[in-house]
Amino acid sequence: MTTVAAYAAPASKAPLERTTIERRAVREHDVLIDIKFAGICHSDIHQAREGWGEAIFPMVPGHEIAGVVSEVGPGVTKYQVGDRVGVGCLVDSCRECDNCKAGLEQHCTGGSVGTYNAIGKDGEPTYGGYSEKVVVDENFVVRIPEGLALDEAAPLLCAGITTYSPLKQWGAAPGKKVAVIGLGGLGHMGVKIAHALGAEVTVLSQSLGKKDDGLKLGADHYYATSDENTFKELAGTFDLILSTVSAPLDFGAYLSLLRTGGALVNVGAPEEPIALNLFSLIGGNKTLAGSMIGGIAETQEMLDFCAEHGIGSEIELIAASEINEAYERVVNSDVRYRFVIDTATI
Amino acid sequence: MTTVAAYAAPASKAPLERTTIERRAVREHDVLIDIKFAGICHSDIHQAREGWGEAIFPMVPGHEIAGVVSEVGPGVTKYQVGDRVGVGCLVDSCRECDNCKAGLEQHCTGGSVGTYNAIGKDGEPTYGGYSEKVVVDENFVVRIPEGLALDEAAPLLCAGITTYSPLKQWGAAPGKKVAVIGLGGLGHMGVKIAHALGAEVTVLSQSLGKKDDGLKLGADHYYATSDENTFKELAGTFDLILSTVSAPLDFGAYLSLLRTGGALVNVGAPEEPIALNLFSLIGGNKTLAGSMIGGIAETQEMLDFCAEHGIGSEIELIAASEINEAYERVVNSDVRYRFVIDTATI
Repeated sequence: MTTVAAYAAPASKAPLERTTIERRAVREHDVLIDIKFAGICHSDIHQAREGWGEAIFPMVPGHEIAGVVSEVGPGVTKYQVGDRVGVGCLVDSCRECDNCKAGLEQHCTGGSVGTYNAIGKDGEPTYGGYSEKVVVDENFVVRIPEGLALDEAAPLLCAGITTYSPLKQWGAAPGKKVAVIGLGGLGHMGVKIAHALGAEVTVLSQSLGKKDDGLKLGADHYYATSDENTFKELAGTFDLILSTVSAPLDFGAYLSLLRTGGALVNVGAPEEPIALNLFSLIGGNKTLAGSMIGGIAETQEMLDFCAEHGIGSEIELIAASEINEAYERVVNSDVRYRFVIDTATI
Repeated sequence: MTTVAAYAAPASKAPLERTTIERRAVREHDVLIDIKFAGICHSDIHQAREGWGEAIFPMVPGHEIAGVVSEVGPGVTKYQVGDRVGVGCLVDSCRECDNCKAGLEQHCTGGSVGTYNAIGKDGEPTYGGYSEKVVVDENFVVRIPEGLALDEAAPLLCAGITTYSPLKQWGAAPGKKVAVIGLGGLGHMGVKIAHALGAEVTVLSQSLGKKDDGLKLGADHYYATSDENTFKELAGTFDLILSTVSAPLDFGAYLSLLRTGGALVNVGAPEEPIALNLFSLIGGNKTLAGSMIGGIAETQEMLDFCAEHGIGSEIELIAASEINEAYERVVNSDVRYRFVIDTATI
């Protein structure tokens, strides 16, 4: 056991504060990671405030972890001390169900283990990346390729894979028109990745406030959804729409922007049910789909793709003492485009 | 112009009554069809009662038409007098938009023309199959293969293609588990076609009342959705679920029956919006899609498939005087499984 400093929410909706937690001793297949950077994901806030249901406290959030290996168990074959590595939303799964065997560990039916706000197979609660170190089984660790800065890589572990997976799966490619709803932490990664995949990319944002940024990130077009003309002008345009926002949208309006046979894939997660007129799907043989992060192998594929295309996250690096303020700014969509905690400041 | 007998709704929600209508003279590319049989589709009732919005009256419903060619225009190349033919939901489209060129005439963006409750390119209202004769451009006529009885073939023109198209599109095939929600006019065709496509077929019906029928039609399994155990037992089972019901379902419950990556395709059309928790889609990377009938070429493909597999609709043949009673029975799900009007009785 190692005692490490961390930032934790002591109770639901409480501000995060500095504390210490215990990390287990390195086991046969474990890797000890000196965490260098941890991204702040909107879902950290949802969970710390129990917006998605009952949670485990104290909670050390953080599932966008980038660091360096400082110790390996005797059975570890994939990593060595000094390797640059990342950890995303999962630190374990059953490894035996059909989904695990298919590389879809995020949909493990035998019981996956979240990086935080979960109970590990050893019966102990898991604690996330807002801390100095973490111990993770090597099979749930990915390699951060040279050429990706660790701070800009951290958000790829959730925001990157969450957008990469559906964009690949639903065919973002040259000749395809892809829209990204929302230019936040997820959205800005969606724009970069869709552009790198060769698609013609449109941002659909509430206002034109971030238009310059959007075009710089790789978007070809930028529209304000507060302008009703947007929905008239773009009707029937897109092969694929990726919604990255957590607010409940008028999905009928957005589905009307799809071409026949098009798909709107949702990775944002409104806490309340949406109202949907099924004629929005029937007319035009349209699809509304969901997508949740990605498997371990796909996460590695995404990191390699991002390194190849020079894609990191746009970040605001903060000290740990600024976490609570950052949470408020995330809730108010006031971040360009991902807060990353410099864990040396914990 | 030819005056022909028909059954029409004179006004919204009014009972249908015998009347006469004018059919246009056969033009260059037209086919005159002596209608033999016309199916009663639930959407006839929706439209005659303006459940889907404002409609055109008097209305002669009917878009499941089977008959015999009795005259052809000079430019007609596909059909001859005496040919057994069918007409479905469309009698024209723009023929120039991307969808028309792709054989998706049902999604024509330039203005398709419904078989009834529509205005044709000549500015005249269209009248459907509850009549003695109809004149249709040969490009919107399909051939009913030998071996398919005309009365059992009529419902294929809507119920058949409406279920065939999504089952093909979404991969019903050997090794796949397919569920069909509802064993009515659409559902019983879905079961027959999914079975013929080689899938393992489960019926999800409110009760077990039609279980013997369902198994006879080709289902491998039959479950009552009024039994809560059904949802526990079948959780995570299906690759594909085809919903054929017009009642608003608890879609979250049905989505939980899909395997990871599975799709629920909706061809029923509730008049009211549904409530949907997007986590039902995100967890398991699931899809909710819509599908509307099929294009002309695909309708011909479906008829050929049905002939090859000996698939007709299960019908209750009625006289035209029984239409209003039949409507009530359709609304009450009291038909096994499609009413077909013998148009000789009009």
